[in-house]
Amino acid sequence: MRFLSFRHAAQSQNHLFGAVVQDGVVNLSERMPEYPTLRHAIAAGALTRAEDIAVQADKDFSLEEIEYLPPIPNAEKIICIGVNYGNRNAEYRDSSETHAYPSIFMRTRESLTGHLQPMLRPPESEQLDYEGEIVIVIGKEGRRIPESEVREHIAGLTLMDEGSIRDWLRHSKFNVTQGKNFERSGSLGPWMVSVDEFARFDNLSLTTRVNGEVRQQDGTDNLLFSFEYLVSYVSTFMRLKPGDLISTGTPTGAGARLDPPKYLQPGDVVEVEVPGIGTLLNPVEDERLD
Amino acid sequence: MRFLSFRHAAQSQNHLFGAVVQDGVVNLSERMPEYPTLRHAIAAGALTRAEDIAVQADKDFSLEEIEYLPPIPNAEKIICIGVNYGNRNAEYRDSSETHAYPSIFMRTRESLTGHLQPMLRPPESEQLDYEGEIVIVIGKEGRRIPESEVREHIAGLTLMDEGSIRDWLRHSKFNVTQGKNFERSGSLGPWMVSVDEFARFDNLSLTTRVNGEVRQQDGTDNLLFSFEYLVSYVSTFMRLKPGDLISTGTPTGAGARLDPPKYLQPGDVVEVEVPGIGTLLNPVEDERLD
Repeated sequence: MRFLSFRHAAQSQNHLFGAVVQDGVVNLSERMPEYPTLRHAIAAGALTRAEDIAVQADKDFSLEEIEYLPPIPNAEKIICIGVNYGNRNAEYRDSSETHAYPSIFMRTRESLTGHLQPMLRPPESEQLDYEGEIVIVIGKEGRRIPESEVREHIAGLTLMDEGSIRDWLRHSKFNVTQGKNFERSGSLGPWMVSVDEFARFDNLSLTTRVNGEVRQQDGTDNLLFSFEYLVSYVSTFMRLKPGDLISTGTPTGAGARLDPPKYLQPGDVVEVEVPGIGTLLNPVEDERLD
Repeated sequence: MRFLSFRHAAQSQNHLFGAVVQDGVVNLSERMPEYPTLRHAIAAGALTRAEDIAVQADKDFSLEEIEYLPPIPNAEKIICIGVNYGNRNAEYRDSSETHAYPSIFMRTRESLTGHLQPMLRPPESEQLDYEGEIVIVIGKEGRRIPESEVREHIAGLTLMDEGSIRDWLRHSKFNVTQGKNFERSGSLGPWMVSVDEFARFDNLSLTTRVNGEVRQQDGTDNLLFSFEYLVSYVSTFMRLKPGDLISTGTPTGAGARLDPPKYLQPGDVVEVEVPGIGTLLNPVEDERLD
Protein backbone atom coordinates (compact mmCIF):
# COMPACT_ATOMS: atom_id res chain seq x y z
CA MET A 1 0.00 0.00 0.00
CA ARG A 2 1.14 3.55 -0.76
CA PHE A 3 0.99 5.93 2.23
CA LEU A 4 1.53 9.67 1.90
CA SER A 5 1.42 13.02 3.66
CA PHE A 6 -0.30 15.98 2.04
CA ARG A 7 -2.22 19.21 2.30
CA HIS A 8 -5.60 19.95 0.80
CA ALA A 9 -6.89 23.46 0.25
CA ALA A 10 -10.38 22.71 1.64
CA GLN A 11 -9.08 21.08 4.85
CA SER A 12 -8.19 23.16 7.89
CA GLN A 13 -5.43 20.80 9.01
CA ASN A 14 -2.06 21.81 7.70
CA HIS A 15 -0.78 18.26 7.45
CA LEU A 16 -2.84 15.18 6.59
CA PHE A 17 -1.86 11.60 5.93
CA GLY A 18 -3.56 9.06 3.76
CA ALA A 19 -3.36 6.08 1.45
CA VAL A 20 -3.48 5.92 -2.33
CA VAL A 21 -6.30 3.76 -3.73
CA GLN A 22 -6.59 3.36 -7.49
CA ASP A 23 -7.25 6.88 -8.70
CA GLY A 24 -7.31 8.83 -5.45
CA VAL A 25 -6.45 9.40 -1.82
CA VAL A 26 -8.22 8.12 1.30
CA ASN A 27 -7.93 10.64 4.13
CA LEU A 28 -6.60 8.59 7.05
CA SER A 29 -6.21 11.63 9.31
CA GLU A 30 -10.01 11.78 9.40
CA ARG A 31 -10.45 8.03 9.94
CA MET A 32 -7.59 7.53 12.44
CA PRO A 33 -7.54 10.85 14.32
CA GLU A 34 -5.57 9.30 17.18
CA TYR A 35 -2.45 9.62 14.99
CA PRO A 36 -1.41 13.23 14.33
CA THR A 37 0.94 12.18 11.49
CA LEU A 38 1.98 9.15 9.44
CA ARG A 39 5.07 8.86 11.64
CA HIS A 40 2.84 8.39 14.68
CA ALA A 41 0.79 5.72 12.88
CA ILE A 42 4.00 3.88 11.95
CA ALA A 43 5.29 4.11 15.54
CA ALA A 44 2.01 2.63 16.79
CA GLY A 45 2.25 -0.30 14.39
CA ALA A 46 -1.03 0.84 12.83
CA LEU A 47 -0.23 0.44 9.12
CA THR A 48 -2.02 -2.90 8.75
CA ARG A 49 -5.18 -1.43 10.21
CA ALA A 50 -4.69 1.67 8.05
CA GLU A 51 -4.58 -0.56 5.00
CA ASP A 52 -7.76 -2.39 6.06
CA ILE A 53 -9.51 0.95 6.43
CA ALA A 54 -8.18 2.31 3.14
CA VAL A 55 -9.16 -0.66 0.96
CA GLN A 56 -12.77 -0.49 2.18
CA ALA A 57 -13.08 3.28 1.68
CA ASP A 58 -13.92 5.44 -1.29
CA LYS A 59 -11.39 8.06 -2.27
CA ASP A 60 -11.77 11.47 -0.61
CA PHE A 61 -9.58 13.39 -3.05
CA SER A 62 -8.08 12.92 -6.45
CA LEU A 63 -4.27 12.87 -6.68
CA GLU A 64 -4.50 16.06 -8.76
CA GLU A 65 -6.05 18.14 -5.99
CA ILE A 66 -3.59 17.43 -3.16
CA GLU A 67 -0.30 19.15 -2.36
CA TYR A 68 2.29 16.46 -1.71
CA LEU A 69 4.43 16.76 1.41
CA PRO A 70 7.46 14.54 2.06
CA PRO A 71 5.87 11.23 3.21
CA ILE A 72 7.50 11.69 6.63
CA PRO A 73 7.69 15.51 6.92
CA ASN A 74 8.67 15.27 10.61
CA ALA A 75 11.42 12.63 10.47
CA GLU A 76 13.63 12.91 13.54
CA LYS A 77 16.73 11.66 11.70
CA ILE A 78 17.53 11.80 7.99
CA ILE A 79 20.65 9.72 7.45
CA CYS A 80 22.30 9.71 4.04
CA ILE A 81 24.81 7.23 2.66
CA GLY A 82 27.58 8.47 0.36
CA VAL A 83 29.18 6.56 -2.49
CA ASN A 84 27.37 3.18 -2.48
CA TYR A 85 27.04 1.83 -6.03
CA GLY A 86 29.81 -0.45 -7.29
CA ASN A 87 31.14 1.77 -10.03
CA ARG A 88 30.55 5.14 -8.37
CA ASN A 89 33.60 5.04 -6.16
CA ALA A 90 35.71 4.92 -9.32
CA GLU A 91 34.18 8.24 -10.44
CA TYR A 92 36.20 10.00 -7.79
CA ARG A 93 39.41 9.04 -9.61
CA ASP A 94 41.51 9.75 -6.55
CA SER A 95 43.14 6.31 -6.51
CA SER A 96 41.90 5.71 -2.97
CA GLU A 97 40.67 2.23 -2.30
CA THR A 98 37.08 1.37 -1.59
CA HIS A 99 36.37 1.93 2.07
CA ALA A 100 35.40 -0.82 4.47
CA TYR A 101 32.47 1.20 5.83
CA PRO A 102 29.88 3.52 4.31
CA SER A 103 30.24 7.29 4.37
CA ILE A 104 27.40 8.91 6.36
CA PHE A 105 26.05 12.43 6.71
CA MET A 106 22.73 13.91 7.79
CA ARG A 107 20.15 16.21 6.25
CA THR A 108 17.52 18.35 7.94
CA ARG A 109 13.77 18.14 7.30
CA GLU A 110 13.75 21.58 5.75
CA SER A 111 16.24 20.53 3.09
CA LEU A 112 13.58 18.34 1.43
CA THR A 113 10.37 19.29 -0.33
CA GLY A 114 7.54 17.04 -1.59
CA HIS A 115 6.65 15.51 -4.96
CA LEU A 116 5.82 18.08 -7.67
CA GLN A 117 7.05 20.97 -5.49
CA PRO A 118 9.94 23.07 -6.80
CA MET A 119 13.50 22.22 -5.81
CA LEU A 120 15.21 25.53 -5.14
CA ARG A 121 18.51 26.76 -6.55
CA PRO A 122 19.81 29.30 -4.00
CA PRO A 123 21.34 32.60 -5.10
CA GLU A 124 24.62 31.55 -3.44
CA SER A 125 25.44 28.94 -6.10
CA GLU A 126 24.91 27.82 -9.70
CA GLN A 127 25.79 24.21 -8.85
CA LEU A 128 22.51 22.57 -7.81
CA ASP A 129 22.80 18.87 -8.72
CA TYR A 130 20.51 15.81 -8.56
CA GLU A 131 21.16 12.45 -6.88
CA GLY A 132 18.40 9.84 -7.24
CA GLU A 133 18.19 7.50 -4.24
CA ILE A 134 16.01 4.84 -2.61
CA VAL A 135 15.10 5.62 1.02
CA ILE A 136 14.41 3.17 3.85
CA VAL A 137 11.69 4.29 6.30
CA ILE A 138 12.26 2.76 9.74
CA GLY A 139 9.16 1.15 11.26
CA LYS A 140 10.31 -0.20 14.61
CA GLU A 141 12.82 1.13 17.13
CA GLY A 142 16.08 -0.74 17.44
CA ARG A 143 19.74 -0.69 18.35
CA ARG A 144 22.36 -3.17 17.14
CA ILE A 145 19.87 -4.83 14.81
CA PRO A 146 21.26 -8.04 13.24
CA GLU A 147 21.07 -8.10 9.42
CA SER A 148 18.73 -11.09 9.63
CA GLU A 149 16.18 -9.00 11.58
CA VAL A 150 16.40 -5.77 9.56
CA ARG A 151 13.24 -6.42 7.54
CA GLU A 152 11.12 -6.34 10.75
CA HIS A 153 12.40 -2.81 11.39
CA ILE A 154 11.49 -1.39 7.96
CA ALA A 155 8.07 0.23 7.42
CA GLY A 156 8.55 0.85 3.72
CA LEU A 157 10.55 2.49 0.94
CA THR A 158 10.36 5.91 -0.69
CA LEU A 159 12.52 7.99 -3.04
CA MET A 160 14.79 10.98 -2.60
CA ASP A 161 16.33 13.46 -4.94
CA GLU A 162 19.28 14.02 -2.63
CA GLY A 163 19.89 17.45 -4.16
CA SER A 164 23.31 18.92 -3.52
CA ILE A 165 25.02 22.28 -3.91
CA ARG A 166 28.34 21.07 -5.26
CA ASP A 167 30.64 24.00 -4.46
CA TRP A 168 29.34 24.17 -0.87
CA LEU A 169 30.13 20.47 -0.38
CA ARG A 170 33.78 21.47 -0.42
CA HIS A 171 33.66 24.37 2.01
CA SER A 172 35.53 22.29 4.55
CA LYS A 173 38.14 19.55 4.29
CA PHE A 174 35.78 16.98 5.78
CA ASN A 175 32.01 16.83 6.13
CA VAL A 176 29.58 17.77 3.40
CA THR A 177 26.83 19.20 5.65
CA GLN A 178 26.66 22.63 4.03
CA GLY A 179 26.16 21.47 0.44
CA LYS A 180 23.55 18.89 1.50
CA ASN A 181 21.31 21.15 3.53
CA PHE A 182 20.18 24.19 1.59
CA GLU A 183 16.49 24.61 2.27
CA ARG A 184 14.33 22.69 -0.24
CA SER A 185 17.37 21.75 -2.35
CA GLY A 186 16.15 18.12 -2.40
CA SER A 187 12.90 16.20 -2.37
CA LEU A 188 11.26 13.12 -0.85
CA GLY A 189 8.31 11.08 -2.08
CA PRO A 190 5.92 10.79 -3.74
CA TRP A 191 4.79 8.26 -1.10
CA MET A 192 6.05 5.41 1.05
CA VAL A 193 5.33 1.92 -0.28
CA SER A 194 4.88 -0.51 2.62
CA VAL A 195 7.54 -3.19 3.05
CA ASP A 196 5.14 -6.09 2.36
CA GLU A 197 5.28 -5.16 -1.33
CA PHE A 198 8.99 -6.02 -1.53
CA ALA A 199 9.98 -9.70 -1.42
CA ARG A 200 13.64 -8.60 -1.48
CA PHE A 201 15.65 -5.38 -1.66
CA ASP A 202 18.42 -6.35 -4.09
CA ASN A 203 16.39 -6.32 -7.31
CA LEU A 204 15.29 -2.69 -7.52
CA SER A 205 16.12 -0.60 -10.56
CA LEU A 206 16.70 3.15 -10.21
CA THR A 207 16.60 5.71 -13.03
CA THR A 208 17.09 9.48 -12.82
CA ARG A 209 16.07 11.66 -15.73
CA VAL A 210 16.56 15.37 -16.38
CA ASN A 211 14.09 16.78 -18.92
CA GLY A 212 13.43 13.21 -20.03
CA GLU A 213 17.12 12.36 -20.61
CA VAL A 214 18.42 9.38 -18.59
CA ARG A 215 21.32 10.48 -16.38
CA GLN A 216 21.49 7.73 -13.74
CA GLN A 217 20.57 4.06 -14.12
CA ASP A 218 21.62 1.26 -11.82
CA GLY A 219 20.24 -1.53 -9.67
CA THR A 220 20.42 -2.41 -6.00
CA ASP A 221 22.15 -5.68 -7.00
CA ASN A 222 25.15 -3.39 -7.56
CA LEU A 223 25.19 -1.80 -4.07
CA LEU A 224 28.44 -1.85 -2.12
CA PHE A 225 26.44 -1.96 1.12
CA SER A 226 23.03 -3.70 1.08
CA PHE A 227 19.93 -2.27 2.77
CA GLU A 228 20.27 -4.97 5.46
CA TYR A 229 23.89 -4.04 6.12
CA LEU A 230 23.14 -0.30 6.24
CA VAL A 231 20.34 -0.56 8.80
CA SER A 232 22.39 -2.95 10.93
CA TYR A 233 25.54 -0.79 10.75
CA VAL A 234 23.80 2.53 11.50
CA SER A 235 21.97 0.94 14.42
CA THR A 236 25.31 -0.01 15.95
CA PHE A 237 25.72 3.60 17.10
CA MET A 238 22.30 5.25 16.65
CA ARG A 239 19.00 4.19 18.11
CA LEU A 240 16.79 3.95 15.02
CA LYS A 241 13.21 5.08 15.61
CA PRO A 242 9.96 4.91 13.65
CA GLY A 243 9.96 7.43 10.83
CA ASP A 244 13.74 7.75 10.70
CA LEU A 245 15.02 7.76 7.13
CA ILE A 246 18.12 6.15 5.62
CA SER A 247 18.82 7.25 2.05
CA THR A 248 20.88 4.50 0.49
CA GLY A 249 23.20 6.31 -1.93
CA THR A 250 23.12 7.33 -5.59
CA PRO A 251 24.38 5.70 -8.83
CA THR A 252 26.95 7.22 -11.17
CA GLY A 253 25.89 10.03 -13.47
CA ALA A 254 25.28 13.07 -11.26
CA GLY A 255 25.65 16.30 -13.21
CA ALA A 256 28.95 17.21 -11.55
CA ARG A 257 30.55 14.05 -12.97
CA LEU A 258 29.69 14.78 -16.60
CA ASP A 259 32.32 16.37 -18.83
CA PRO A 260 31.63 19.25 -18.88
CA PRO A 261 29.47 19.27 -15.71
CA LYS A 262 25.75 19.89 -16.25
CA TYR A 263 24.13 21.54 -13.25
CA LEU A 264 20.40 22.02 -12.90
CA GLN A 265 18.83 25.18 -14.32
CA PRO A 266 15.53 26.86 -13.54
CA GLY A 267 12.87 25.19 -15.66
CA ASP A 268 14.56 21.77 -15.61
CA VAL A 269 12.45 18.79 -14.49
CA VAL A 270 14.07 15.97 -12.50
CA GLU A 271 12.47 12.52 -12.19
CA VAL A 272 13.64 9.69 -9.94
CA GLU A 273 11.90 6.43 -10.84
CA VAL A 274 11.96 2.98 -9.26
CA PRO A 275 9.38 0.44 -10.56
CA GLY A 276 7.47 -0.82 -7.52
CA ILE A 277 7.88 2.49 -5.70
CA GLY A 278 6.93 5.23 -8.17
CA THR A 279 8.29 8.39 -9.77
CA LEU A 280 9.36 11.45 -7.80
CA LEU A 281 9.15 14.52 -10.03
CA ASN A 282 10.33 18.04 -9.24
CA PRO A 283 10.74 21.16 -11.32
CA VAL A 284 13.74 23.39 -10.56
CA GLU A 285 13.25 27.03 -9.64
CA ASP A 286 15.49 29.86 -8.55
CA GLU A 287 14.90 30.70 -4.90
CA ARG A 288 13.27 34.10 -4.53
CA LEU A 289 14.48 36.16 -1.60
CA ASP A 290 11.68 37.86 0.29
CA MET B 1 18.43 33.34 34.32
CA ARG B 2 19.22 29.63 34.18
CA PHE B 3 16.57 27.48 32.47
CA LEU B 4 16.67 23.70 32.51
CA SER B 5 14.81 20.50 31.66
CA PHE B 6 14.53 17.71 34.19
CA ARG B 7 12.66 14.79 35.66
CA HIS B 8 11.49 14.43 39.25
CA ALA B 9 10.60 11.08 40.80
CA ALA B 10 7.42 12.40 42.43
CA GLN B 11 6.06 14.01 39.26
CA SER B 12 4.07 12.04 36.75
CA GLN B 13 5.33 14.06 33.78
CA ASN B 14 8.36 12.53 32.16
CA HIS B 15 9.84 15.85 31.13
CA LEU B 16 9.58 19.12 33.05
CA PHE B 17 11.19 22.48 32.53
CA GLY B 18 12.06 25.10 35.08
CA ALA B 19 14.33 27.89 36.25
CA VAL B 20 17.13 27.83 38.82
CA VAL B 21 16.65 30.26 41.72
CA GLN B 22 19.33 30.45 44.38
CA ASP B 23 19.33 26.98 45.89
CA GLY B 24 16.59 25.28 43.94
CA VAL B 25 14.34 24.82 40.95
CA VAL B 26 11.04 26.52 40.14
CA ASN B 27 8.76 24.15 38.22
CA LEU B 28 7.69 26.18 35.18
CA SER B 29 5.83 23.25 33.59
CA GLU B 30 3.29 23.63 36.40
CA ARG B 31 3.10 27.43 36.14
CA MET B 32 3.14 27.67 32.32
CA PRO B 33 1.32 24.51 31.25
CA GLU B 34 0.64 25.96 27.82
CA TYR B 35 4.26 25.07 26.91
CA PRO B 36 4.95 21.31 26.77
CA THR B 37 8.74 21.87 26.81
CA LEU B 38 11.36 24.60 27.19
CA ARG B 39 11.73 24.59 23.41
CA HIS B 40 8.07 25.54 23.06
CA ALA B 41 8.47 28.36 25.61
CA ILE B 42 11.48 29.68 23.69
CA ALA B 43 9.58 29.50 20.40
CA ALA B 44 6.72 31.49 21.92
CA GLY B 45 9.08 34.21 23.15
CA ALA B 46 7.98 33.44 26.71
CA LEU B 47 11.35 33.48 28.52
CA THR B 48 10.92 37.00 29.90
CA ARG B 49 7.57 36.08 31.40
CA ALA B 50 9.09 32.81 32.66
CA GLU B 51 11.77 34.82 34.44
CA ASP B 52 9.15 37.12 36.01
CA ILE B 53 7.30 34.08 37.29
CA ALA B 54 10.45 32.35 38.56
CA VAL B 55 11.86 35.30 40.53
CA GLN B 56 8.59 35.70 42.44
CA ALA B 57 8.27 32.00 43.25
CA ASP B 58 9.68 29.78 45.96
CA LYS B 59 11.67 26.79 44.86
CA ASP B 60 9.73 23.58 44.28
CA PHE B 61 12.71 21.24 44.35
CA SER B 62 16.31 21.28 45.45
CA LEU B 63 18.93 20.80 42.72
CA GLU B 64 19.92 17.55 44.45
CA GLU B 65 16.57 15.87 43.91
CA ILE B 66 16.13 16.41 40.17
CA GLU B 67 17.41 14.30 37.29
CA TYR B 68 18.94 16.65 34.73
CA LEU B 69 17.95 16.25 31.09
CA PRO B 70 19.71 18.06 28.27
CA PRO B 71 18.27 21.62 28.50
CA ILE B 72 16.68 21.15 25.05
CA PRO B 73 16.06 17.39 24.94
CA ASN B 74 13.97 17.70 21.78
CA ALA B 75 16.20 19.93 19.64
CA GLU B 76 15.27 19.56 15.99
CA LYS B 77 18.83 20.27 14.79
CA ILE B 78 22.13 19.79 16.64
CA ILE B 79 24.83 21.38 14.51
CA CYS B 80 28.47 20.95 15.52
CA ILE B 81 31.46 22.98 14.37
CA GLY B 82 34.81 21.23 13.89
CA VAL B 83 38.27 22.74 14.44
CA ASN B 84 37.54 26.32 15.57
CA TYR B 85 40.17 27.50 18.08
CA GLY B 86 43.21 29.27 16.71
CA ASN B 87 45.83 26.73 17.64
CA ARG B 88 43.75 23.58 17.19
CA ASN B 89 44.10 23.40 13.45
CA ALA B 90 47.86 23.07 13.96
CA GLU B 91 47.25 19.93 16.03
CA TYR B 92 46.34 18.09 12.86
CA ARG B 93 49.92 18.51 11.58
CA ASP B 94 48.87 17.68 8.06
CA SER B 95 50.31 20.87 6.57
CA SER B 96 46.93 21.81 5.17
CA GLU B 97 46.09 25.46 5.42
CA THR B 98 43.36 26.84 7.62
CA HIS B 99 40.09 26.62 5.74
CA ALA B 100 38.03 29.62 4.73
CA TYR B 101 34.85 28.10 6.16
CA PRO B 102 33.99 26.05 9.24
CA SER B 103 33.68 22.28 9.19
CA ILE B 104 30.13 21.20 10.11
CA PHE B 105 28.52 17.92 11.12
CA MET B 106 25.36 16.97 12.99
CA ARG B 107 24.53 14.95 16.08
CA THR B 108 21.27 13.28 17.07
CA ARG B 109 19.37 13.97 20.29
CA GLU B 110 20.05 10.47 21.56
CA SER B 111 23.80 11.01 21.37
CA LEU B 112 23.63 13.45 24.32
CA THR B 113 22.74 12.85 27.95
CA GLY B 114 22.19 15.37 30.76
CA HIS B 115 24.36 16.80 33.55
CA LEU B 116 25.50 14.20 36.12
CA GLN B 117 24.26 11.31 33.94
CA PRO B 118 26.83 8.75 32.76
CA MET B 119 28.49 9.17 29.38
CA LEU B 120 28.65 5.71 27.84
CA ARG B 121 31.67 3.95 26.37
CA PRO B 122 30.24 1.41 23.90
CA PRO B 123 31.60 -2.14 23.67
CA GLU B 124 32.62 -1.43 20.05
CA SER B 125 35.51 0.89 21.02
CA GLU B 126 38.01 1.84 23.70
CA GLN B 127 38.44 5.34 22.25
CA LEU B 128 35.76 7.48 23.94
CA ASP B 129 37.13 11.03 24.08
CA TYR B 130 35.95 14.38 25.51
CA GLU B 131 35.57 17.72 23.72
CA GLY B 132 34.42 20.67 25.85
CA GLU B 133 32.34 23.19 23.90
CA ILE B 134 30.06 26.21 24.28
CA VAL B 135 26.64 25.80 22.65
CA ILE B 136 24.39 28.48 21.14
CA VAL B 137 20.64 27.90 21.64
CA ILE B 138 18.63 29.55 18.86
CA GLY B 139 15.72 31.67 20.10
CA LYS B 140 14.13 33.05 16.95
CA GLU B 141 13.66 31.55 13.51
CA GLY B 142 15.78 32.97 10.73
CA ARG B 143 17.45 32.46 7.39
CA ARG B 144 20.40 34.48 6.04
CA ILE B 145 20.77 36.33 9.35
CA PRO B 146 23.30 39.22 9.14
CA GLU B 147 26.04 39.05 11.79
CA SER B 148 24.78 42.34 13.22
CA GLU B 149 21.39 40.76 13.98
CA VAL B 150 22.59 37.42 15.34
CA ARG B 151 22.17 38.36 19.00
CA GLU B 152 18.39 38.78 18.50
CA HIS B 153 18.24 35.15 17.32
CA ILE B 154 20.04 33.65 20.36
CA ALA B 155 18.02 32.48 23.39
CA GLY B 156 21.03 31.58 25.50
CA LEU B 157 24.17 29.50 25.93
CA THR B 158 24.82 26.05 27.35
CA LEU B 159 27.70 23.55 27.40
CA MET B 160 28.44 20.31 25.58
CA ASP B 161 30.86 17.50 26.12
CA GLU B 162 30.96 16.69 22.43
CA GLY B 163 32.03 13.12 23.21
CA SER B 164 33.56 11.25 20.30
CA ILE B 165 34.49 7.65 19.47
CA ARG B 166 37.82 8.32 17.78
CA ASP B 167 38.31 5.16 15.73
CA TRP B 168 34.76 5.37 14.36
CA LEU B 169 35.39 8.97 13.20
CA ARG B 170 37.65 7.49 10.54
CA HIS B 171 35.33 4.79 9.22
CA SER B 172 34.92 6.77 6.02
CA LYS B 173 37.17 9.12 4.06
CA PHE B 174 34.90 12.06 4.70
CA ASN B 175 32.21 12.71 7.27
CA VAL B 176 32.56 11.95 10.96
CA THR B 177 28.90 11.05 11.65
CA GLN B 178 29.54 7.57 13.05
CA GLY B 179 32.07 8.58 15.71
CA LYS B 180 29.94 11.54 16.81
CA ASN B 181 26.66 9.74 17.30
CA PHE B 182 26.98 6.77 19.61
CA GLU B 183 24.02 6.90 21.97
CA ARG B 184 24.78 8.95 25.12
CA SER B 185 28.44 9.32 24.16
CA GLY B 186 28.21 13.06 24.89
CA SER B 187 26.33 15.42 27.19
CA LEU B 188 24.55 18.78 27.23
CA GLY B 189 23.87 21.13 30.14
CA PRO B 190 23.59 21.64 33.00
CA TRP B 191 21.22 24.45 31.94
CA MET B 192 20.80 27.24 29.41
CA VAL B 193 21.81 30.71 30.62
CA SER B 194 19.68 33.35 28.90
CA VAL B 195 21.43 35.66 26.45
CA ASP B 196 20.79 38.82 28.51
CA GLU B 197 23.53 37.67 30.89
CA PHE B 198 26.19 38.00 28.18
CA ALA B 199 27.26 41.49 27.14
CA ARG B 200 29.49 39.88 24.51
CA PHE B 201 30.50 36.42 23.32
CA ASP B 202 34.25 36.89 22.77
CA ASN B 203 35.35 36.92 26.42
CA LEU B 204 34.30 33.46 27.60
CA SER B 205 36.86 31.09 29.10
CA LEU B 206 36.44 27.32 28.66
CA THR B 207 38.15 24.64 30.75
CA THR B 208 37.80 20.86 30.46
CA ARG B 209 39.04 18.67 33.31
CA VAL B 210 39.33 14.88 33.60
CA ASN B 211 39.45 13.67 37.20
CA GLY B 212 40.34 17.23 38.20
CA GLU B 213 43.28 17.53 35.76
CA VAL B 214 43.02 20.41 33.28
CA ARG B 215 43.08 19.07 29.71
CA GLN B 216 41.59 21.92 27.68
CA GLN B 217 41.77 25.66 28.38
CA ASP B 218 41.09 28.43 25.91
CA GLY B 219 38.97 31.51 25.37
CA THR B 220 36.44 32.59 22.77
CA ASP B 221 38.75 35.50 21.92
CA ASN B 222 40.80 32.80 20.16
CA LEU B 223 37.99 31.47 17.95
CA LEU B 224 38.63 31.17 14.23
CA PHE B 225 34.92 31.77 13.60
CA SER B 226 32.98 33.94 16.06
CA PHE B 227 29.52 33.06 17.38
CA GLU B 228 28.09 35.82 15.19
CA TYR B 229 29.80 34.46 12.09
CA LEU B 230 28.71 30.87 12.80
CA VAL B 231 25.02 31.69 13.20
CA SER B 232 25.07 33.89 10.12
CA TYR B 233 26.94 31.31 8.02
CA VAL B 234 24.80 28.32 9.04
CA SER B 235 21.63 30.32 8.41
CA THR B 236 22.78 30.89 4.82
CA PHE B 237 21.69 27.35 3.98
CA MET B 238 19.60 26.15 6.95
CA ARG B 239 16.50 27.75 8.41
CA LEU B 240 17.43 28.09 12.08
CA LYS B 241 14.52 27.50 14.45
CA PRO B 242 13.91 27.99 18.18
CA GLY B 243 15.71 25.33 20.18
CA ASP B 244 18.19 24.48 17.44
CA LEU B 245 21.71 24.08 18.84
CA ILE B 246 25.06 25.15 17.39
CA SER B 247 28.06 23.75 19.28
CA THR B 248 30.94 26.09 18.59
CA GLY B 249 34.00 23.81 18.55
CA THR B 250 36.58 22.61 21.07
CA PRO B 251 40.03 23.85 22.16
CA THR B 252 43.27 21.84 21.86
CA GLY B 253 43.91 19.08 24.36
CA ALA B 254 41.45 16.30 23.54
CA GLY B 255 42.71 12.93 24.74
CA ALA B 256 43.47 11.68 21.23
CA ARG B 257 46.02 14.50 20.78
CA LEU B 258 48.07 13.66 23.87
CA ASP B 259 51.24 11.59 23.45
CA PRO B 260 50.41 8.83 24.16
CA PRO B 261 46.64 9.30 23.70
CA LYS B 262 44.56 9.17 26.89
CA TYR B 263 41.04 7.94 26.24
CA LEU B 264 38.30 8.00 28.84
CA GLN B 265 37.93 4.99 31.14
CA PRO B 266 34.98 3.84 33.22
CA GLY B 267 35.09 5.73 36.52
CA ASP B 268 36.59 8.89 35.00
CA VAL B 269 34.82 12.18 35.65
CA VAL B 270 34.73 14.88 32.94
CA GLU B 271 33.94 18.52 33.72
CA VAL B 272 33.38 21.29 31.19
CA GLU B 273 33.38 24.70 32.89
CA VAL B 274 32.70 28.21 31.59
CA PRO B 275 32.33 30.97 34.22
CA GLY B 276 29.00 32.67 33.58
CA ILE B 277 27.45 29.46 32.29
CA GLY B 278 28.34 26.72 34.79
CA THR B 279 29.99 23.33 35.02
CA LEU B 280 28.77 20.28 33.12
CA LEU B 281 29.90 17.13 34.93
CA ASN B 282 29.59 13.54 33.75
CA PRO B 283 30.99 10.26 35.00
CA VAL B 284 32.06 7.70 32.40
CA GLU B 285 30.57 4.21 32.38
CA ASP B 286 30.80 1.19 30.15
CA GLU B 287 27.56 0.66 28.26
CA ARG B 288 25.78 -2.46 29.46
CA LEU B 289 24.08 -4.48 26.76
CA ASP B 290 20.65 -5.70 27.76
